[in-house]
Parts: sequence; structure tokens; C-alpha cells
Amino acid sequence: MGSESATHSLGEQYREVRATTSRLREPLSEEDCTVQSMEDASPAKWHLAHTSWFFETFVLEAIDPNYRCFHPEFRVLFNSYYNSVGDQHPRPRRGLLSRPPLHDVLRYREHVDEQMMHLLDPRRNEPLPAGIADVIELGLHHEQQHQELILTDAKHMLSCNPLRPAYHRDLPSTAPAEVKPLRWHWREAGTRWIGHEGSDFSFDNERPRHRVFLDSFEFASRPVVNGEYLAFMEDGGYQRPELWLSDGRATSLDKDWNAPLYWEKRDGVWMVMTLAGLRKLRLDEPVCHVSYFEADAYATWVCARLPNEAEWEVMASEVPEVEGNFIENGLLHPVPTPAGDPESGPAQLFGDVWEWTQSAYGSYPGFSPPEGALGEYNGKFMCSQMVLRGGSCATPRSHIRATYRNFFYPASRWQFSGIRLARDGR
Amino acid sequence: MGSESATHSLGEQYREVRATTSRLREPLSEEDCTVQSMEDASPAKWHLAHTSWFFETFVLEAIDPNYRCFHPEFRVLFNSYYNSVGDQHPRPRRGLLSRPPLHDVLRYREHVDEQMMHLLDPRRNEPLPAGIADVIELGLHHEQQHQELILTDAKHMLSCNPLRPAYHRDLPSTAPAEVKPLRWHWREAGTRWIGHEGSDFSFDNERPRHRVFLDSFEFASRPVVNGEYLAFMEDGGYQRPELWLSDGRATSLDKDWNAPLYWEKRDGVWMVMTLAGLRKLRLDEPVCHVSYFEADAYATWVCARLPNEAEWEVMASEVPEVEGNFIENGLLHPVPTPAGDPESGPAQLFGDVWEWTQSAYGSYPGFSPPEGALGEYNGKFMCSQMVLRGGSCATPRSHIRATYRNFFYPASRWQFSGIRLARDGR
Amino acid sequence: MGSESATHSLGEQYREVRATTSRLREPLSEEDCTVQSMEDASPAKWHLAHTSWFFETFVLEAIDPNYRCFHPEFRVLFNSYYNSVGDQHPRPRRGLLSRPPLHDVLRYREHVDEQMMHLLDPRRNEPLPAGIADVIELGLHHEQQHQELILTDAKHMLSCNPLRPAYHRDLPSTAPAEVKPLRWHWREAGTRWIGHEGSDFSFDNERPRHRVFLDSFEFASRPVVNGEYLAFMEDGGYQRPELWLSDGRATSLDKDWNAPLYWEKRDGVWMVMTLAGLRKLRLDEPVCHVSYFEADAYATWVCARLPNEAEWEVMASEVPEVEGNFIENGLLHPVPTPAGDPESGPAQLFGDVWEWTQSAYGSYPGFSPPEGALGEYNGKFMCSQMVLRGGSCATPRSHIRATYRNFFYPASRWQFSGIRLARDGR
Amino acid sequence: MGSESATHSLGEQYREVRATTSRLREPLSEEDCTVQSMEDASPAKWHLAHTSWFFETFVLEAIDPNYRCFHPEFRVLFNSYYNSVGDQHPRPRRGLLSRPPLHDVLRYREHVDEQMMHLLDPRRNEPLPAGIADVIELGLHHEQQHQELILTDAKHMLSCNPLRPAYHRDLPSTAPAEVKPLRWHWREAGTRWIGHEGSDFSFDNERPRHRVFLDSFEFASRPVVNGEYLAFMEDGGYQRPELWLSDGRATSLDKDWNAPLYWEKRDGVWMVMTLAGLRKLRLDEPVCHVSYFEADAYATWVCARLPNEAEWEVMASEVPEVEGNFIENGLLHPVPTPAGDPESGPAQLFGDVWEWTQSAYGSYPGFSPPEGALGEYNGKFMCSQMVLRGGSCATPRSHIRATYRNFFYPASRWQFSGIRLARDGR
Repeated sequence: MGSESATHSLGEQYREVRATTSRLREPLSEEDCTVQSMEDASPAKWHLAHTSWFFETFVLEAIDPNYRCFHPEFRVLFNSYYNSVGDQHPRPRRGLLSRPPLHDVLRYREHVDEQMMHLLDPRRNEPLPAGIADVIELGLHHEQQHQELILTDAKHMLSCNPLRPAYHRDLPSTAPAEVKPLRWHWREAGTRWIGHEGSDFSFDNERPRHRVFLDSFEFASRPVVNGEYLAFMEDGGYQRPELWLSDGRATSLDKDWNAPLYWEKRDGVWMVMTLAGLRKLRLDEPVCHVSYFEADAYATWVCARLPNEAEWEVMASEVPEVEGNFIENGLLHPVPTPAGDPESGPAQLFGDVWEWTQSAYGSYPGFSPPEGALGEYNGKFMCSQMVLRGGSCATPRSHIRATYRNFFYPASRWQFSGIRLARDGR
Repeated sequence: MGSESATHSLGEQYREVRATTSRLREPLSEEDCTVQSMEDASPAKWHLAHTSWFFETFVLEAIDPNYRCFHPEFRVLFNSYYNSVGDQHPRPRRGLLSRPPLHDVLRYREHVDEQMMHLLDPRRNEPLPAGIADVIELGLHHEQQHQELILTDAKHMLSCNPLRPAYHRDLPSTAPAEVKPLRWHWREAGTRWIGHEGSDFSFDNERPRHRVFLDSFEFASRPVVNGEYLAFMEDGGYQRPELWLSDGRATSLDKDWNAPLYWEKRDGVWMVMTLAGLRKLRLDEPVCHVSYFEADAYATWVCARLPNEAEWEVMASEVPEVEGNFIENGLLHPVPTPAGDPESGPAQLFGDVWEWTQSAYGSYPGFSPPEGALGEYNGKFMCSQMVLRGGSCATPRSHIRATYRNFFYPASRWQFSGIRLARDGR
Repeated sequence: MGSESATHSLGEQYREVRATTSRLREPLSEEDCTVQSMEDASPAKWHLAHTSWFFETFVLEAIDPNYRCFHPEFRVLFNSYYNSVGDQHPRPRRGLLSRPPLHDVLRYREHVDEQMMHLLDPRRNEPLPAGIADVIELGLHHEQQHQELILTDAKHMLSCNPLRPAYHRDLPSTAPAEVKPLRWHWREAGTRWIGHEGSDFSFDNERPRHRVFLDSFEFASRPVVNGEYLAFMEDGGYQRPELWLSDGRATSLDKDWNAPLYWEKRDGVWMVMTLAGLRKLRLDEPVCHVSYFEADAYATWVCARLPNEAEWEVMASEVPEVEGNFIENGLLHPVPTPAGDPESGPAQLFGDVWEWTQSAYGSYPGFSPPEGALGEYNGKFMCSQMVLRGGSCATPRSHIRATYRNFFYPASRWQFSGIRLARDGR
Repeated sequence: MGSESATHSLGEQYREVRATTSRLREPLSEEDCTVQSMEDASPAKWHLAHTSWFFETFVLEAIDPNYRCFHPEFRVLFNSYYNSVGDQHPRPRRGLLSRPPLHDVLRYREHVDEQMMHLLDPRRNEPLPAGIADVIELGLHHEQQHQELILTDAKHMLSCNPLRPAYHRDLPSTAPAEVKPLRWHWREAGTRWIGHEGSDFSFDNERPRHRVFLDSFEFASRPVVNGEYLAFMEDGGYQRPELWLSDGRATSLDKDWNAPLYWEKRDGVWMVMTLAGLRKLRLDEPVCHVSYFEADAYATWVCARLPNEAEWEVMASEVPEVEGNFIENGLLHPVPTPAGDPESGPAQLFGDVWEWTQSAYGSYPGFSPPEGALGEYNGKFMCSQMVLRGGSCATPRSHIRATYRNFFYPASRWQFSGIRLARDGR
């Protein structure tokens, strides 16, 4: 990564990732960018600032003791959770910040971009300080995570508005599709290697590559679709305690769940909130915005289970290339399973919907987070969350890979999270 | 009110009141207008829409069965608490409405204004339908109440921002003043008339005029000032349970109160958040943004008490004209007591700070709210709140009078609420 | 009070009041005496100990510097709310005290009684120290208040048990009665004296006697009965927001109220929990265990209002003697209005049910609490509570009088609280 | 299990287990048995009834359609969480049940015992119905779990009492011991079998036996002791966010943790609440009553980690016999590590303290819960809890084994939970 050409390419990556963030912001007004609809979500303005704060704090300040920060209060305002950096503006109060105005946040981005592009200028005749290229690469993947959050947080915020406004009224959609019966792909028991190795980028939580023993299992050919999930609902799925985990039952009663997030019945017709506004529910699309609890209850109902993350990774490792319905497609909504050769392996592993696994998020054997503040990036969340795999329609394609581990609390629903089934091998 | 000239004058009043609201909004950006900083407060955008909704609902729709409302969803979105009109968007979720954008809310105001000005056009040769002039007059006083709330809610919202931004950086301020010792004005016992009568406007809760018996009492010559309140604090006022009401003690411990709202100590210096941003605390200004509990504890500390509302009204009735530091002054902050003849009666009864009374807000004998939805305006709040009197630096001068009864919960602090002392007559 | 015969009589009073408390405890097991069913209520064991603590702290310790307390930890455990005495075991944790066992608490009572009886021994040749007789008298009235609370708290606790157990299975009850139509007693406007004066015992909050001006009013001949309240319910009373105070509406929705506390429908029949267990609801009995909010909504529904406390006291002052259904009757339940001369004034002012007034609890003009800890007895609660008058079927007869002011929060329902109507004079 | 001699032996087991429960109750008074000190804990009376309910519901009612239950309301009152059986008295309200009195609960136990002993009578000439012996065995292990809970719940309840009363004042204790330095036992990487198989009793969650791959690891020779944990505290362990999981940090701040549960400093000396009352903290005893979060933070502080449950089980499988400080010892408190051969493997794997593992509680591959209500026993809790291993000083010896999986939420502290360290193999 230290060579001139790599630096050159890092500059181009930087420019592209940052430009994508800006493009995603465009459909959102100053007001849209300010509102925080729940503690889990952040205003778009905060995401725009925080991702710049990341480069300012971990790159610009780190390498230049004389660097003058854009605004001294931003150090606290836009620190997400890095205790090693210092205090943080409380997360539930991110939506109280009418100031700085969006305009100033965009200037902040420009300021950081100028400094960064200067640093990454191929004509600059100095190598980057040791380790800094890695931090920048991490910063770009970090920014891609926030690109997805800008969309999911905006979707949630817009869904809280009785006007059900759209992020973008004119998002394209796909033609209706025939849903093929779900099939099972069998894999035999054995010791497998999972996790990331090599010099390509990965987060620390994907490493080290290590062995796991897997019993034989079967893996579903595609994600569960809305029509199937509706059958679960119509069979009393939400009312039958025997299908639910105990915590799931308590949560669903407490929050009065009776359908996935964003579904609502109007005049007897199921509608669904999308980034293009309220649309009629399509039965052929993968079910989305379900919690782990709902995914697990559905799996129980069909006498199956969710895969564990190693099973998922084994299947995904067989896929030659990461392809799917990603943010670049501009649909920002999951699509029906494309027609294809049913023998060739599970479809839609990547993109469309994040797939809940039954694996609690934890450290791999031999895991060791980096020294310093960036050690807080992933490791300190290794408790009480569940692993999701594969990326979604709101994930940048270059961000995802077979070893990628996303994680959310089992009650979370505002991500594009769906259901992949598995079962014990016969 | 039904005559042509009255209608003419009502039209002018309408134009003026509405224009004032617009002017108060100007220093606030789209983002400022969207944020709701607590359940008690509303975004400025909501105030702008709700006051228009009031005229649309109670005037335009009421008199014209064919009136086409500006937007059908606004009926729910901007209904504050009128159950007789229908459902309401939940109060704590007013800050989730990034849409309609401010621009659309301003168009909504224009739309309502056009229709209203047409109705109030002096060249129109029809009298207003029966009772409608009174509703319009109520609507204008209602809008003046929201003018004050726009300021107090914005102040609270800006105070939640670590940047401590200003509503308007360049508000004028007054010269330092010498604080005269507090003196007492004695009034003898007897039966007194209080409450409003006659055809001039008043709210229903100020009527009917009726007799009360008052024992002899003494009334303070001016409001308590910051310097005096600071002495209370330095004497351990917030730590001494014997000075506090039981509910007040519990509230102050629970909320960790140790100074009035908006006071903060920086580097050993007391600062105070104002609509012009953070300023050094001035000892000569009336203390402000205290709860009933703090006002009562302070009064106990100086071996006095708060006046009841009848005592306050008796004193205010002696004042020939309503004068004081009101919103029109543009200071938007209470000022020191002006020099003047100490014999001539209590100073600053009107304007500067609302004065807590020890009277719980309730109905006057013979009170009867109007029929229909407007009966919900005041009467249903007659429980658990305390009466405040006299208006503040954020009240329009034409809005206040000696009989005016404001009311807030005893723990509320975000209004310009201060302390007037009284004591039993000797 | 200082004379030998008064001391003698005080000793007898002491013995009687204390013995009554013991008798009330008898139907309760160790387990019954330990449970606390909500924060507002206390375990009977705590009441037994606290009333002894009162005499130990304010009499025995006060007069004898060498007094050795029964148990040093009891000073904190059984202090209710006297900050001047010191720390208090947190109120919501009173039900965690399995120890001291009931047996030790009864020994504590005996210990205090011995010391007190020694002090009050008529053969003792020393006068009581100055002021101590008054404190003892206060302590006895204090204990009578806790006698009522032992019953209301036990009733609440037993009602939380799905077995609906009885405090005492064999309480007597009265014969069915014909409910006479409600009539109105008119009183003319004028200045009246209310409040207590003279050397007889009263609480500080009943003093000083002072003048109030009352407009003419009408006062209902008897309390509202269950049959009438049921008609309100059947007319949708709990569902119609226009009948309710705003806070009342919010409370009733939040707590899912649709009938008075302790009413429950079983197989289509209204039942009511009593101290004798679950019984069929009788339509002829005064409605009971309603909040201020329900009382006010009912009054609105019948186009009347609740009386204010001065009106109530004026009516009660006309009654020559305090008579009614009190704790001594042993029914522990309100009874139908006795037949009687309808001209002779309102019935059942005393006993049966406490009557909500529309008066917020506050200080009378000239009120001054005593110095020291006993100043905390009443004064610090003068905020956000409503006055009730007249005593109930759980009040000792000797405890009540026309000037007596009880007070609870408007949402409270676990006292024997009912509805007396009034209306403006015609 | 179906043979006569097995039935005979089952009867003896039944008698013994039930008698142990009764013995554990003896030091507790009626009042002690009634109080519920937090939602997680239950009153002893409830445990006594629930364990009888288990046999009544799953054995007596299951095999005899004419069985007349002891009390029809008990079906709801003492159902813990079996939705398939029906409704449940809400868990947080278990402490409101002053009735049934302890006496009736003991009669309920006798009633069930009579019926059960009749069923298990070796002279009875009928075999048990199919499957019933297994249910009875499950019921006995279930009762042993509640034996431990009776102790831990009572300890918590007594600790909430400022008197710090003892469960049993005269519990024996051990002599001070020298704490040997902690040593590491290395195990090489490889595929291992874990989980239970065979006809001996186990819970469903221990099955099926299956393979896991373990990297090489090192395992601590003994649990962490108080002296070591105190060093962590004195090094600012509770104040240093970098040592804590994110959820752990939030919990510790929210709950104001700064020491293990039951530690309190009095006059500068660390004391600890035990079942024998408050004692001076002993530095040589295993640290106890720590949450997963504290265990994890401590491990981070010493640059180690917690073992995963497979590592733990591998080590425990090497131990020839289950021996340790169990409930039968009657100490009811963890003891210092006994002197012994340091080469012979880790000490105190069984008994003393439950050892937190870094494994989230989930299903083993191929797990399938039994049909019917008993399928709710373990499976529905497989989310958001962490596995603990090895039993404690409050566990019956016959209850524990190497494959036994206990589970609690990571914030739980009221069990006898301690810390075993591990680290990656070198």
C-alpha cells in the first residue's frame, strides 16, 4: 500500500467514495438532514460530519501536530463512540443540532477533502506516514457503512411522517417475477476455514482466518419472500407464543408488532413504505425489515432454522464474484430472485437484504483489535448482537465480501434485514 | 364587532399580528424551524402551521361548507389538542416532520391569509356570520400566544446545542443599573372584585368578574433579581430540603437542578443563555426561567411567600396603563428595574418576566366555557398547573392585561418566569 | 392541656388509639403485613412501626437526652419524610423489609407504649415539658391517619392478588335501600368564615380561621351512588374526551381506566373488591375509589361541578354533630343514604366516602407551620394535590371535623374517595 | 428407567430432593418467604409452590384425567413461563402474594408429595406411563435449580435490607489460605467432541454431542480471587472505558457500579454481604457476584480473555469426578483454592462459583427441543444470554456435570458468578 501507485489509487478511491456520499445526500433537504427519528438512527447531517471527523481525527490530526481543526467543538459533536478520543455529544441528542447548518457541514467536508487530497496527491513526493494508508482505507469503508445508514436512517425518519414522503419519488422498479419454490443445497460435515486473510482490506472482526467444524447442513436457494411471510402472518404467526423466542415474544407484545416494519394495511390492502414512498406490497420480493426475532419465528414456523455465520460463509465462498442488487443499481429496494440455474447454488447471497444468522456476534479465536482508538471500532460491541451477512440493496458493492460480518441487536428492524433459511443435514 | 368599521379594524389587526409572526420567524433557518427539543416545546414550523390551521378550521371551514382545505393531512398534523375536531399528530413527534418543508408551511400561511383577508375586506358588502368576528379575535390572541412560544421554544432548542447559538446575535441590551432595596406595598383586607367583564376581548378563563375576600397583604416593589437569587444559591438554597415543597425537592433532585435554567458556570463565571447567545450573568436583571418550586423555595428563604393571583390582580388594577418591556422592545430579555418613584406602586408588573402566583389554575365561580371545540381552549387544563401573571419580554403588549391568567406546571422553567414576593399584612 | 386531669385524659386517649391500631392489625398475617403493593401504599408492618417511631422521635427522644432508642436503624427505616430528622429508607423499598419481623415491630410498639404510659401516668408528679402534650395529641391524630391507611393499603394489596382474599371475611353489611332522587340545597352569596380556631385540636393546615367570599351555590343532598355512576359509564363516559380534564384524559388512557378502582366484570356481572372480599356491586351505595379526574368528568356529564372546599365547609358547619358511617361501625364500606328528612340538609357529609373538592390544596392566608421537623407535617405538600373533605368509612369518628382537610393527587383512587356534586346558584 | 428398581430409586430421589428444598426453606420466616426484591428474583414461597406445580401439571394432571388440582387458581399463579399450559401471573407481581400463606403452600407440597409417592411406590404393581419417569427426573433437576435460586434470591432480598440480616447466622467458614500464583494449562488445537450423550440425565440444551474445532488455548489454574479483583478496582478498572464492552460501560454507568454486587465499604473497610450476613471481605476467596461485563473487563485488564464454553468443557471432561464446594457443604459461600498438585489440572472447575464463558447461549447443531410444553424449558431462551459453567457453592452436587450449561444475561450479578481466565495458545 505504501507505493506511489497505490497512493495514487487511494486518492481516486477517496474522491469516489466521498462523491457518492454527497450524491446520496442530494435528495434530502436541510430539514430532512436534521431530524433524528429514534436513538438508533442519526440525522444525515450528522453522518456527513462524522465521516469527515473520522479523517480529520485519525489522519489529519494524527500526522500533523500543527493541524488546525475546522471547528474545535466538532471534536465532541461528531465523535460517535471513541472514548479514547474524548467526550461525545449524547447520541439521543443528535437531532437537536439545528446548527451547524447543512451548509457549514458541507464546507467542513470540503475542508477535509482539500487536506486529504493534498495528502493523497500523486505528485507529492513523500510517502504517507507509516500506517496512514491503512487508516485511510478504513475510513473509506467506514464512510461506506455510513452511506447505507444515511439511507436506512432517512427511510425511518420519512416513515414516521404521516405524509409518507419519498426520499426520491422516481426510483426505478423491477417487473413482477414468478417465485420459484425454495430448494435446499446440502453440504457435508467437516472442518472448514472461515474468516479473512491476506493483505486485502477487511475489518479486524473478520480475522484471523481459522477453522470451525460444521455438521452437515442444508441451505435455502433464495431468501424468504413477502408472499411466504404473509402466509406466516395469516397463520397467526405473530400471535403464537410457541414460535417465538422468549425475548422476542416480550418485544413483539411490548412494541405491538404484527407485521414487518414499514408494512401498513390501508383499506384492506398491504402497503409498504419504501425510499420511493408508499407502494403496494409485492409478494415476489424478499421480505425485509424484520428483526432477528421475527426471522427466527418464521424459521420455526417452517420447521427450519437460520444458518449460522460459518455455514453462510461457506456457501458464499463458493460464489466466484460478488454480484447482486447493490446501492449502485439505484433501486434502493430488494428485488425478486432473478431467473437462473437452480443447480448453480443459492441465489442473492449478496445484496438485496442482509441475512440474519443464528450466530451471536463475538470475537474469532485469536482476534486482537488494533492499539489505540481504532481498537474501539468493532471489538467493544461483541455482546448481545447477532451477525448478519451479505449486504443489501443499500450497500456499496465494493464494500461487501464473503467474510464480512455486520451486527445488530436482535430487536432491530430498520436495516434492510431479511431471512435466509437453513436446516440440519439429513 | 359586527359593524363595518370594526371589521375593517379586525382586518388590520389580522394583517399586523400575522406579519409579526412572520418577522419573528426570520432569524430562524429551515433547520431551526424543524427541531423539537422537548415534549413541551414545538418546532417553529409547527407553530407557523398550527396558527394558520386555527383560522382555517374555526373560520374558513366553519363558514363555508365548500371550503377546500390546503392539504387534507394538515387537519391532523397541526391540530394541537382539539378532540372535538379529531385526531392529532402526537405531540412528542412534532419534531419528526421534516416535511412539509418550511416553504410549504409559508405557502399555507399565505393561502389562509388570502382567504381571511378576502373575508375581512372592508369593501365586501356582507357582514361576517354571527360569532365569527369573536373567533377571529380569539385566533389573533391565540397567535400572539404562539409568538411567545416561538421564542421560548427556540431559546430552549438553541440552549440544547453545545455551540450555544443565538436566535439573533445583535439584540440590544440595557446599561447596568443600581438595584434598589426591595420595599413592600401594604393593602388592607376586604372584598375585592377580580376577573374580566365588558365587551373587550378576554379569554374565557378570566370571566366572570366576581368577588374574593383578601386578608391584608404586602406586595414587593419589584421582581427578585439575579444578585438576590445568587445569594440564595450561595446560602445552599438548592441543598436545603426545609426550603422546598416536597414535590419540588423530588424534582430538583431528579433533574439535578442547582441554578435556574440556562445558567451555566464557565471557568468560575456564571453565564446565561439568552436569545442573543451566551452572555455573562447580570446581577441587576430580574431572575428568570425558574420553576414554581424554585420561586417558592426562594420566597421561603426570605421569609416571604408568593402572591396569590387575586392579590396580584388587585395591584395590577391600580396601574393606569399596561407598560413594560415587551416583545416590541426587541430586547427579548428582562431588564433591570427602571429608576422611578418608589411610592408610586410596584414596578414591572407587566412585561419582563411572568410572575408565579401561589394560585392553582382553576375556574372562577360561574365559569362556563363556550360550546363546541373552542370550549377546549382553556377549561380542560384546570388542574395541577399554577397561575402566572403579567406577561414577559416575549409577550406582545396588546396581548396582556391585569386580568390575564397564564398557567404552567410547577416544574416548568422554559418560559420567561420570575419571582414576585408578597407577605401577610402586619 | 397541662393540668393533671388533662394529662390523665391524654393517657387514656393514648391507650385507646394505640389499642385500635393493634385491633386493626389482627386480621392481617405476618405476610399480609409485609407486602407493599405500590409506591403510594406501605406495608401494615411499616405503619405499625412508623407510628411508634413518631412518639419515640418527637416525644421520648425530645424530652430525654439519655433515652436509648429501641433500635438505632429504626430511626432511618421508619422515618416517613422528615428531612429535619435525617435520612429515610426509600419509600418504594418499604416492601423489601422482611425484617424486622412483625413480632419485633410489636415489641417495639410495646416498648414505646411503656415509656409513653410512664410519662402519661397520672400518678407521676411532674407536669409534661412545655409543648409535649400538644405533640402527643398530634401523634394520636397522626396514628389515626395511619389507621385509615392500614385499611386502604391492605385493601389495595389484597386486590392485587388474583385470589381476591378478604381482610375480614365476615364484615356486616346493610340492607338494600331505595335511592332518593338527588336534591339541591341553595345557599346565598356572601362572606363566610372558614378554618379552625380555638384550643381544640386541629392540624396546622386548617388554620387560621379566615374569611372567604362565596357566590351563591347549590349543594347536593347526598353523594353520587353506583347506579348513577354506572349510567355515566354506559353513556360512554370513559370514552368521551369532552367530559374530561386534559390530564385526566391522558391518565385514563395511560392506565386503561374504564371503571372505578376495584370494579371488575365477571361473566357479565359487575363485582367489586371490598375488605370482605369480592362482592356483587350494589347500585344503592355511594360510588367509591374514583379519582378526582373521574369525579370531575362525572360532574361535567351531569352539568354540575364539584364543590370547592369552602362551600363544603359551610355546609358541614351547619351539621350539629359529627355522625356517620365510620371505622367504629365495623362495616369498612360505604352505605346507602339513610332515610331521613330531605329538608334537613345534605346527608352523609361525614363518613362513608371522602368527597373530592375542586380546591387545590394550599395554605390559608396567614398560615404558618410550626418550627422544626413537625413543620414538615403538612405544609410541604401544598402543591398539585386536591382537597377532600368529610372522612370515610375507614376514618375514626373522633378524627374528623368540618374544618378537616385531606389531600391527594388527582389521579389517586385507593382511598375511599367519592363524589359530592354542587352547582352555581341560580 | 422403566424397571421396578429404577422406579424405586426414583422414589428415593424424589423424597431426597423434596426434603432438601424444605430444609433450605427452614431458616426463612413467613415474611422472608414472601418478599420479591427485584423482577429477576422470586419469593421463596413462589419457588416452593412452583416446583410442586411442576409435578402437579406435568405428571399428576398429565396421567390422570380425573386428577383434582389442589387449587384451581394455582395453575396460573405458579406457572413460570409455560405458554402452552396457559396464562401466568405476571413475574414482577410475584411479591404481591401475601396469600396463599406459607402454611398453605407447604400443604400444597405435602399434597403433591403424597400423590407422587403413591405413584412412585415400589409396591405399586403398575409401570409408570410412557415417558413419565423422564418427566419426573426432569422435575427433580428443575427443583434443584430452584434450590439454588431460593438461596440466591433470598441473599438478594436480605441484601436490600439496611439491617443486612443473615439467612443463617452460623454458617461455617474456612481458614485463611495462601493464594498461589495463577498458572496456565495449555491445550493443543484440534477437533473435539462436546455435549452430552447416553441415557444419563441431561437437559435438552446439552445435546446432541457434536464436534467443534478449537484452536490451541491456555486455561487458568484457578478462578480469579478477590485480592486480584481489588487490584483491578484500585487501578481504576471501573473508570476506564477502554477495558469495557460498550454495553457493559453503559450498564455500569447507568447502575453506578464500582464493585461487585454485595461489596460495600464501611469506614474504609471492604465488607461483603453473605448468607451469614455482612462479613469482612477476604482476599483469598474467588471473586463472586460479578456480571459478564465485569468478568470481561477484568480479563481485558490482565490481557487475557474468558474461555468459550467448549474450551471449558474440554478441561472439565478431564476431571475424573465432580467434586467441589457445593450446597451440601453448607458453607454457601465460595472458598479459597485448596492446596494441591498444580500440575494436575485446573482447580475448582466445579462448585464455588459459576464461571462466565464468552459463549452466547444458543442451540447445538441438531438441537431439537421435546414436543409440547416442556419444549419451552430451555430452547426459547437461546438469545442474548451468556453461558456459565461448573456450578457454585449453592448448587447440589448431583445436579452438575461437565456438559451442564447455565445461562444468564450479561448484566446479571445475583448468582454466584465468578471469573475463570483463558488465553490463546502460544
